[in-house]
Amino acid sequence: MAIQPPRGTRDFMPAEMIKREYLLEMVRAVFEDYGFQPLGTPAFESWELLSKKGSGGEAVKDEIYYFRDKAKRGMGLRFDLTVPLARVVAANPQLPKPFKRYQIGRAWRYDRPQAGRLREFLQADADIVGSDKLDCEAECLALAVNALFQLGFRKFRVRINNRKILNGIMEASGVRKGGEAEVLRVLDKMEKIGPGGVRKELKSLLSPRKAEAIMKAIERRGSPTSMLRSRPEIEASTVADRGLDELRELVDKCMVYGIGKFLEIDFSLVRGLDYYTGPIFEVSIDTGKNVGSVAGGGRYDNLIELYGGKWTPAVGISLGIERIYEIMESEGMFKQPGTRTEVFVVAVDDSVRTDAVRVAQEIRSKFANAETDLMGRDVRKQMAYINAEGIPFAVFVGPAELKKDRFTVRDMKTGKEAGLTMSQMAKNFGKV
Amino acid sequence: MAIQPPRGTRDFMPAEMIKREYLLEMVRAVFEDYGFQPLGTPAFESWELLSKKGSGGEAVKDEIYYFRDKAKRGMGLRFDLTVPLARVVAANPQLPKPFKRYQIGRAWRYDRPQAGRLREFLQADADIVGSDKLDCEAECLALAVNALFQLGFRKFRVRINNRKILNGIMEASGVRKGGEAEVLRVLDKMEKIGPGGVRKELKSLLSPRKAEAIMKAIERRGSPTSMLRSRPEIEASTVADRGLDELRELVDKCMVYGIGKFLEIDFSLVRGLDYYTGPIFEVSIDTGKNVGSVAGGGRYDNLIELYGGKWTPAVGISLGIERIYEIMESEGMFKQPGTRTEVFVVAVDDSVRTDAVRVAQEIRSKFANAETDLMGRDVRKQMAYINAEGIPFAVFVGPAELKKDRFTVRDMKTGKEAGLTMSQMAKNFGKV
Repeated sequence: MAIQPPRGTRDFMPAEMIKREYLLEMVRAVFEDYGFQPLGTPAFESWELLSKKGSGGEAVKDEIYYFRDKAKRGMGLRFDLTVPLARVVAANPQLPKPFKRYQIGRAWRYDRPQAGRLREFLQADADIVGSDKLDCEAECLALAVNALFQLGFRKFRVRINNRKILNGIMEASGVRKGGEAEVLRVLDKMEKIGPGGVRKELKSLLSPRKAEAIMKAIERRGSPTSMLRSRPEIEASTVADRGLDELRELVDKCMVYGIGKFLEIDFSLVRGLDYYTGPIFEVSIDTGKNVGSVAGGGRYDNLIELYGGKWTPAVGISLGIERIYEIMESEGMFKQPGTRTEVFVVAVDDSVRTDAVRVAQEIRSKFANAETDLMGRDVRKQMAYINAEGIPFAVFVGPAELKKDRFTVRDMKTGKEAGLTMSQMAKNFGKV
Repeated sequence: MAIQPPRGTRDFMPAEMIKREYLLEMVRAVFEDYGFQPLGTPAFESWELLSKKGSGGEAVKDEIYYFRDKAKRGMGLRFDLTVPLARVVAANPQLPKPFKRYQIGRAWRYDRPQAGRLREFLQADADIVGSDKLDCEAECLALAVNALFQLGFRKFRVRINNRKILNGIMEASGVRKGGEAEVLRVLDKMEKIGPGGVRKELKSLLSPRKAEAIMKAIERRGSPTSMLRSRPEIEASTVADRGLDELRELVDKCMVYGIGKFLEIDFSLVRGLDYYTGPIFEVSIDTGKNVGSVAGGGRYDNLIELYGGKWTPAVGISLGIERIYEIMESEGMFKQPGTRTEVFVVAVDDSVRTDAVRVAQEIRSKFANAETDLMGRDVRKQMAYINAEGIPFAVFVGPAELKKDRFTVRDMKTGKEAGLTMSQMAKNFGKV
């Protein structure tokens, strides 16, 4: 009997769930601070829809959980939250614009299971649909940085690029029409195989001269100002020129949002999926020990039309909740207790069990999450449970306490005790 | 191109999601009040596991979303939250007991789509694992009633029965060994086909005398005291006798929890699934206009062993979130606004757009969820958006306001306006 969860998935025990819920709560609060509204969509979508994204097609089937329903319709568990959004917008043209929605939910990908890479994972997306203004990109970036800041991170890298610049670089370097997707796929491997590997793979696709021209263009580094000023490698391309103009404007907008100091222009940034049409970005955090990309997104003006809607510009950012969680955990950034219970009401003998339940009910209705014994245990075993669970306070109910209407409250951490009435407990809960 | 969600599933637009989130938040808070801890499990489980439940087997396959993963392992979307719990407990025998867990999540059943019956739906379950005490049943019932009370319901019916009594009734009525499941399946149709229908179906299974004996036993009605006192039809059975003792004790415990007045003993209550072993219960609400069962559960002491764990007693209750939502909606019980945004910062002309963003950022960081224009719109169109979205407050930013460092705040409902500094806004937000 398989009592382990399916391969590539996990159970989350309470102590871990409490931290995850905290993380999600913070992210949700920031999304709402910025005026994004929650949207809910099904866990699965029609195969017809899922196979549309990018150049995916049949190949997508290998990477998702595919099934047929009883009516033989092809279905798949959603692999991201962008496809469902595009479908919803296509189906609801009447939605007021901009449509600012967030969605926090699971997605599923049939990857080879790797260390820390799950097939079922949580994503938190914020998207702005209906505006072609670069204010949207700036707001998405500010939102991501702010969410990470609220979670306790302090050092950020916000790398930005523009698909138009990449297209311009390819055009100026002489990549043939139709060959762009292949080149982008190679460039997208930069983090995995490094510049040496990318150069080598480019040379297998292109002439050495073209490959070098591309490498020279994407390897440039410098301050945003210098990167956006001098651009000999790409000035031949008008599309790249528009891309540069957009980035210049985006940098200005980011200044207004207070995140200008984190910006880096990185012409080598590709961001995999080929539905992006304008600015693309990736947010990384640096804790000294842990460095990693935890959010990314960009503009995808043609996606909603691809899904059968009217042409509608759109931008979004996606936070990788699992990655953020991992880093926070390894950095000891969570301060959550292992249980949500705040008080355990101890029945000191069998004569007061009913009273202990009444006291617990009163505590629940007035000021704290409370448990009481459900096992018919003696005091020693009740205390052992309190310790095993890490419940912070014990309230003792015994015949003497009931007579005086004062209960002994013990802070389980310090061992300090006080005799308090119910209303005193309610008023100063947490302080003994 | 299919832009509708898959058959039997739905999208939830923001106004509806805001109400759903509120409902879940209330339920979660009550679960935690009672000392239940969150647990997370995957959306799908192995087919081996799913097919174990009750007498299901292959027949279960028709009622779930079944698929094979790339390694040809049979899988299915979970159809409830109890099977995953039983698996987790079986896999983690070290968990301190009682293990009080809640889980709020989706489940999927491949039912024929009906009015208001979805194939993807939310459930909220609370279970207590490891205790054979009837305190657990009482606590589950108190929790459900309290959650519904917090949501605004006032009239409850808590129907209780005991599988042991049903077994005793069948035994005393002469149902042959092995024929019980079939009889229970008929009794379980009471709400659908009524006593007449049940009587008829019983007579097709049993002799008229046996069918009548069962009908007489299950149709008895009366106060809990009278129901639990006189029991001529079932006194021949020792198992029923134990069942009656348990119900008597459970009634007493429910009194302590303050829900005694809602109790009804109903010997015809079966609760479908055949894994229940002791008390079973169903909680209904009555709003005058809407009456319906919205929560149910019972004791299932053998389930964890069935899933490969040690024998472990357990009780649980499940709240049908979709049903509760429907009733609250049709009763007008939701008071949530259609948007989570509290303030829209209006840029009165193009010269102050940057300032409007800065003001919005300050409002976000200090006291409220805020939006500002992302479409380059003029004031008239910004106001139209505010109205379309139902945003409750507008803050006007213009050259004059910036000079005085005072902003005009308009309550969009009353039309009242006031000139306030940022710190005045922060202090008295919501009052103009």
